[in-house]
Amino acid sequence: MVAPALLPELWTEILVPICAVIGIAFSLFQWYVVSRVKLTTDLGASSSGGANNGKNGYGDYLIEEEEGVNDQSVVAKCAEIQTAISEGATSFLFTEYKYVGVFMIFFAAVIFVFLGSVDGFSTDNKPCTYDITRTCKPALATAGFSTIAFVLGAVTSVLSGFLGMKIATYANARTTLEARKGVGKAFIVAFRSGAVMGFLLAASGLLVLYITINVFKIYYGDDWEGLFEAITGYGLGGSSMALFGRVGGGIYTKAADVGADLVGKIERNIPEDDPRNPAVIADNVGDNVGDIAGMGSDLFGSYAEASCAALVVASISSFGINHDFTAMCYPLLISSMGILVCLITTLFATDFFEIKVVKEIEPALKNQLIISTVIMTVGIAIVSWVGLPTSFTIFNFGTQKVVKNWQLFLCVCVGLWAGLIIGFVTEYYTSNAYSPVQDVADSCRTGAATNVIFGLALGYKSVIIPIFAIAISIFVSFSFAAMYGVAVAALGMLSTIATGLAIDAYGPISDNAGGIAEMAGMSHRIRERTDALDAAGNTTAAIGKGFAIGSAALVSLALFGAFVSRAGIHTVDVLTPKVIIGLLVGAMLPYWFSAMTMKSVGSAALKMVEEVRRQFNTIPGLMEGTAKPDYATCVKISTDASIKEMIPPGCLVMLTPLIVGFFFGVETLSGVLAGSLVSGVQIAISASNTGGAWDNAKKYIEAGVSEHAKSLGPKGSEPHKAAVIGDTIGDPLKDTSGPSLNILIKLMAVESLVFAPFFATHGDFRNPPSIRDLF
Amino acid sequence: MVAPALLPELWTEILVPICAVIGIAFSLFQWYVVSRVKLTTDLGASSSGGANNGKNGYGDYLIEEEEGVNDQSVVAKCAEIQTAISEGATSFLFTEYKYVGVFMIFFAAVIFVFLGSVDGFSTDNKPCTYDITRTCKPALATAGFSTIAFVLGAVTSVLSGFLGMKIATYANARTTLEARKGVGKAFIVAFRSGAVMGFLLAASGLLVLYITINVFKIYYGDDWEGLFEAITGYGLGGSSMALFGRVGGGIYTKAADVGADLVGKIERNIPEDDPRNPAVIADNVGDNVGDIAGMGSDLFGSYAEASCAALVVASISSFGINHDFTAMCYPLLISSMGILVCLITTLFATDFFEIKVVKEIEPALKNQLIISTVIMTVGIAIVSWVGLPTSFTIFNFGTQKVVKNWQLFLCVCVGLWAGLIIGFVTEYYTSNAYSPVQDVADSCRTGAATNVIFGLALGYKSVIIPIFAIAISIFVSFSFAAMYGVAVAALGMLSTIATGLAIDAYGPISDNAGGIAEMAGMSHRIRERTDALDAAGNTTAAIGKGFAIGSAALVSLALFGAFVSRAGIHTVDVLTPKVIIGLLVGAMLPYWFSAMTMKSVGSAALKMVEEVRRQFNTIPGLMEGTAKPDYATCVKISTDASIKEMIPPGCLVMLTPLIVGFFFGVETLSGVLAGSLVSGVQIAISASNTGGAWDNAKKYIEAGVSEHAKSLGPKGSEPHKAAVIGDTIGDPLKDTSGPSLNILIKLMAVESLVFAPFFATHGDFRNPPSIRDLF
Repeated sequence: MVAPALLPELWTEILVPICAVIGIAFSLFQWYVVSRVKLTTDLGASSSGGANNGKNGYGDYLIEEEEGVNDQSVVAKCAEIQTAISEGATSFLFTEYKYVGVFMIFFAAVIFVFLGSVDGFSTDNKPCTYDITRTCKPALATAGFSTIAFVLGAVTSVLSGFLGMKIATYANARTTLEARKGVGKAFIVAFRSGAVMGFLLAASGLLVLYITINVFKIYYGDDWEGLFEAITGYGLGGSSMALFGRVGGGIYTKAADVGADLVGKIERNIPEDDPRNPAVIADNVGDNVGDIAGMGSDLFGSYAEASCAALVVASISSFGINHDFTAMCYPLLISSMGILVCLITTLFATDFFEIKVVKEIEPALKNQLIISTVIMTVGIAIVSWVGLPTSFTIFNFGTQKVVKNWQLFLCVCVGLWAGLIIGFVTEYYTSNAYSPVQDVADSCRTGAATNVIFGLALGYKSVIIPIFAIAISIFVSFSFAAMYGVAVAALGMLSTIATGLAIDAYGPISDNAGGIAEMAGMSHRIRERTDALDAAGNTTAAIGKGFAIGSAALVSLALFGAFVSRAGIHTVDVLTPKVIIGLLVGAMLPYWFSAMTMKSVGSAALKMVEEVRRQFNTIPGLMEGTAKPDYATCVKISTDASIKEMIPPGCLVMLTPLIVGFFFGVETLSGVLAGSLVSGVQIAISASNTGGAWDNAKKYIEAGVSEHAKSLGPKGSEPHKAAVIGDTIGDPLKDTSGPSLNILIKLMAVESLVFAPFFATHGDFRNPPSIRDLF
Repeated sequence: MVAPALLPELWTEILVPICAVIGIAFSLFQWYVVSRVKLTTDLGASSSGGANNGKNGYGDYLIEEEEGVNDQSVVAKCAEIQTAISEGATSFLFTEYKYVGVFMIFFAAVIFVFLGSVDGFSTDNKPCTYDITRTCKPALATAGFSTIAFVLGAVTSVLSGFLGMKIATYANARTTLEARKGVGKAFIVAFRSGAVMGFLLAASGLLVLYITINVFKIYYGDDWEGLFEAITGYGLGGSSMALFGRVGGGIYTKAADVGADLVGKIERNIPEDDPRNPAVIADNVGDNVGDIAGMGSDLFGSYAEASCAALVVASISSFGINHDFTAMCYPLLISSMGILVCLITTLFATDFFEIKVVKEIEPALKNQLIISTVIMTVGIAIVSWVGLPTSFTIFNFGTQKVVKNWQLFLCVCVGLWAGLIIGFVTEYYTSNAYSPVQDVADSCRTGAATNVIFGLALGYKSVIIPIFAIAISIFVSFSFAAMYGVAVAALGMLSTIATGLAIDAYGPISDNAGGIAEMAGMSHRIRERTDALDAAGNTTAAIGKGFAIGSAALVSLALFGAFVSRAGIHTVDVLTPKVIIGLLVGAMLPYWFSAMTMKSVGSAALKMVEEVRRQFNTIPGLMEGTAKPDYATCVKISTDASIKEMIPPGCLVMLTPLIVGFFFGVETLSGVLAGSLVSGVQIAISASNTGGAWDNAKKYIEAGVSEHAKSLGPKGSEPHKAAVIGDTIGDPLKDTSGPSLNILIKLMAVESLVFAPFFATHGDFRNPPSIRDLF
């Protein structure tokens, strides 16, 4: 029996929800500040008046040069466009949720039936799996509670995405309007809105998980093994919704984007976001449903899964065996600390320092990452000191491994800092301030072909350091504390999720703000300001994707470990036929999945192109701006295509673990999970970075800041045309197939984990079960 | 003690070399037949006369319409161009061999020192590893003989590539000249030349291996374990030369090709292979050094490695323990049978049936694959019946597994047929007769971006079935006969190597023939005939690459198994930190390698573009055809670039196993090998097929055979321009980075195998050895 953690159980029970509530309150406060930018025509002056209070960075000295602040017709126009975008996004998400709702109900039933069948739907208590001297709750209870947890996770994920989208569409026009007063003001509106989303998501994810654990505990009592087994459903729910959010949203946004660009920019030679382009509203809607709602669900899923993986391993370690609640809640304490740290970090951007000129934007965003990482390192040390016993044991595939609290501190830190490294490497390879992207831009001299060759090579190369960072994190955390170490390393990387999401959501909001400025016919200067915001947002979006992939790798390894533990496997030996073919086929799955998503974007984009061309050809006066395009049809094409096309890749991911586990057994499934993990991470990183690099190579030529860039430009030159082609190819890579792969690897792992008892009981290749075995 | 094989040892000793000699004789005979097409001006008529004999398919009825047969100036021109290509290729290969020769000497020394150090350079006999009651030869002897085998393998590989190139450059102009008489005649010349290479390579590889074994046996006597350990050096030598051949040749050919196309086709709008293009000779040289010499070395390497992997596992199985020489030589007997089967198969194309019209070409080539596979199935049955005991045991990671001869027959067959399936799937995805390539061509309507998106998606999708085919082969052969089964499955896939190489080499020869026709200013009709040959060759080249990758996957798994056996590892457990990070980093290596090779092609192509542009701009009368371009400078650019650029990727592949094995131990190395295998196979297949599909999508639009194709064309239309961009991007994917990955995965595995005793003795991460341990 080891000594319990310093922090008493009661304090833990109080501190975790308090931190979550603080996070939510902070989020609402930021929303309130954003809402003070009025979007009604009679209040343009009042907004100006509010600015004179000098509060929260709204001091007059920030205003570089006011432009058209009193033009009420612009405000009305912005409000109108915002409404169109918001309505389009809401309508798409509701359509999507209708379909995933059906899926959710069906899959909840599958979970209940499959897990209930493990013990033949018996309601008798049974001996515990890991300690047969004690009595645990029946498998049927785990089935029921897993199902409930699944639904809770799914609903929280859906809400996270939906609220994120609501905030983003609320903030976009406000950012545009503030851009009239200066780049600093616009930045703060966009950043605060991002923070709303980041804190709301991090805090509500924590709160729902905390409440669920406490409610389930009423039934489970001392059976923590069963309790935390059931909790894994929460991760599965979160991640399965994220899959559809990412894939559906990704197809939506890129079909619209590619379609709009191919006809508008290349064929008709009109600027991006020109209101004459029929696909322009769909394009702006896409940013909100794909990059915001999809990303929100994705990172929420990672967070939920990492917590579940850590909890399930902890429950069969000394924390669980000794019923040390504080130590058991170590993952939640880390997340709670993360919320506080991110809160302080946010103040650095919004209150402690203020943005005065364009070139300060990107450093301000990057400093957010550095500040949060540094402070969080101290935070982890505190949590590890008070929240853990000085020495404890961790379940390690059949044995218990002794771990010291400082070792676990190092595990969390290595994940946290690996995230930072991945972020900065991603930035290096995707920002046009450095030579890799400049080389890609330079290769546009000889046309699109060399641009693509160089871009692909850049993406491949950008994999190297992140993989070493992930490998070192795994080695350190695995060596210190087996799979628990890997899980907390993932949590470490995700501990600053609120800040990560804030700077991530900032990008699409700025992008939308630029779109609204263009559509509202605002002046060139204002468009330049929003472009500056957007350029910084591109880089931070790439960094965010790097984080998402890195954490997904760690999370899915942790889930894999938890699955293996729960399935009762002690070794996954590559030198057995089942495992090696599992590895091989698993490594193939990301390719299969990418083939589906890429092709989907391509087909949907072709449809969009035809519709946009049709409108240009048949609506008289469209090019002259005297007639309005039919935006709704384009929105419908994107919606229909994405809903239809998200089903096959969704099925691939959801069915593979079930089929492999049931027919080929858990060893083969282990191979498949490991294979898809090691292969998927590489494609995800390279696809995201290739796409990001092409995007910024194009922006580099367009901006023409250096002599070199000028020699490649201006817009419309041959190198620029080549760069636009690269950018268009990169769109599905960086916003659809690449980021969706995170979810592929995580989701297959968490699904395997949830169904592990079912596979262990029923699944085998050589003795294929008859349907009767199910009942 | 089990009963020995039916076939007495003496017969085996006689049959194997006889089959090899038959193969060489057949190859020389085909060469003689090709040589009867005279390339001297005064013999144009005599060649025609020869044709009237009606022998070997040279009957008059084959002649569709003779065209310019008596134009002696054309013959002289062809001879001149051929000389230029041949000299360029020879000069490049000699430069390349100078560098790899230095490498070879250096690496031979490394092998000797590292392996000799295993036992402190002791000359005393020692107890055998797998049977400590017996005495084996000292480690120093293994070091010495391994070094000799390495050099032999390297020299044979270099010779294979060199002779292949010589034959191809001998045959290309002859094919052009025969095209004047009809497509059937040209086909037969090209095909026979391919056969020369195929048989020469398969037979000499077998013969050298056979002689080496017998010579080494004089020293080793009863110590078969040591004997076959030393023989593995042969595989390493073959594959390391293949690496430089593939990478160097691949960069050479694609730098020239991309450079020639970008300026010639896109900027200057002159046809492919136009003599005014300064890079045209370099381009044609490239086909011979890359696709012929590189491919020859690659497949020779696969063959040598598969044999070595099988032999080394057999030596520690009952064959080796009981000294059953015939059973031991089972891999060699399979290859011997393969030569006879391919010989018969070849006659189907050259003598039994004859090509009369264009549309018969592709079926004739595909039938070669089917016929050889069907006959070989019977051949394997015979060899398995007479060459194996009915029951025997195979070493299976520490235990011996009982295997029946029919099980081993199935292992070889599953590999053989998997190869055929992979070949046909590759054809389906890369031939423009089927919908996938037609869809890609159709996507060119909306420009290069959608073409690239669809092409990438096609490549990803084309991975699915081949991976399942490989996985099933592995599962069956591994389940029946552990790693020996996998090795013989690989040999099964490679047993028809002579036919595979023949149809593979046919492609570049036809390509060159077309180039010569264009450069010699021959009529449009002749160019059409060579184009028809070339189109069929494109598809068979893709099939050949499919074979090469599939066999590489099996070979490297077999080598991996042999390595693990020799390093004394019994499990490679994914649930250990060393193995999982090995997997992750291993899966990254193909990306790193591809980044290097893609970037190399891009950079070299940029240099070529500049030079070609410079010549067009500065040489007066070049475009008008009144002045000759400076071909030599372009040849030099390609040569210099490829020699310089092949070193970093070469180092990556050669150093990784040494560094990982020495510093991080054999478990990590096992992970790295497994990771690079499962990830590399996918990239290799998708890269090859994407590139092949783009190439044929372009050809589909150019040929304009169907209504659909016509609607996309003609040459110079917007969709065609988009298709050309895709084709150019595909060049490095399908001819440089994709095929080089085969070698990456094989070479790292065979290198690990050779150095296994060294790593097992010295290598460990936690106890890093001091330099003193080496001696």
